[in-house]
Amino acid sequence: MSQLDETIQSMKLDDHGLLTAVIVDAASKAVLMVAFMDPKALAETIRTGKTHFWSRSRKKYWMKGEESGHTQDVQAIYTDCDKDCVVVEVVQHGAACHDGYRSCFYRRLTAEGGWEIVAEKVFDPGKVYGKGT
Amino acid sequence: MSQLDETIQSMKLDDHGLLTAVIVDAASKAVLMVAFMDPKALAETIRTGKTHFWSRSRKKYWMKGEESGHTQDVQAIYTDCDKDCVVVEVVQHGAACHDGYRSCFYRRLTAEGGWEIVAEKVFDPGKVYGKGT
Repeated sequence: MSQLDETIQSMKLDDHGLLTAVIVDAASKAVLMVAFMDPKALAETIRTGKTHFWSRSRKKYWMKGEESGHTQDVQAIYTDCDKDCVVVEVVQHGAACHDGYRSCFYRRLTAEGGWEIVAEKVFDPGKVYGKGT
Repeated sequence: MSQLDETIQSMKLDDHGLLTAVIVDAASKAVLMVAFMDPKALAETIRTGKTHFWSRSRKKYWMKGEESGHTQDVQAIYTDCDKDCVVVEVVQHGAACHDGYRSCFYRRLTAEGGWEIVAEKVFDPGKVYGKGT
């Protein structure tokens, strides 16, 4: 077994067999999105240098940008003390959020307890997506 | 019902009733740790200005730093397009990781497929913790 196979097999999966993956912009360090990888998606991410995930809702693998073209080039992968989570630094092509924002985290909690949008849309989702992400 | 109560109740919980919480350093934007909040932990985080979580393994609430003193002062809270995740920007006192590193993500994947430690320990866990985080 290769060192990489051993590394992937030693990750601590949740009860759905998944790891949490936090995708961050390699330059600004901003969190772009959070999604899930199983060992196969992690291996494919490493092999191809493009982020791949498991969709809990659609129950299928997907590559970020497969529909929009807004792919993510992997620069570095980190894991945490528990090895149940990875942080993936990427160069984001286009934008990460299917709502048209660069980051999915485009809303900030206000002092009044509501959400305010604190980012600018960088594309029109209606023109990019037929459906889904 | 207050606006904040409505905001908290409108979050989309996973099948364990939890949100993923990504804790980032307010200054450097580095991801410090990833943990879980239920609506009560999120409300307590907002009310007190200190991060509170639900421990899936210990099945109890905990405040970061309750044992170590390494608390996190909340500066801002963001949510994503699905409202199933929050990013919490904090001022970290001491260090986030119970292994003694400032961030839990102190290991980076090498070209050979192993993990290399890429951070310096900032405290001795044996002197700070009797047990656990």
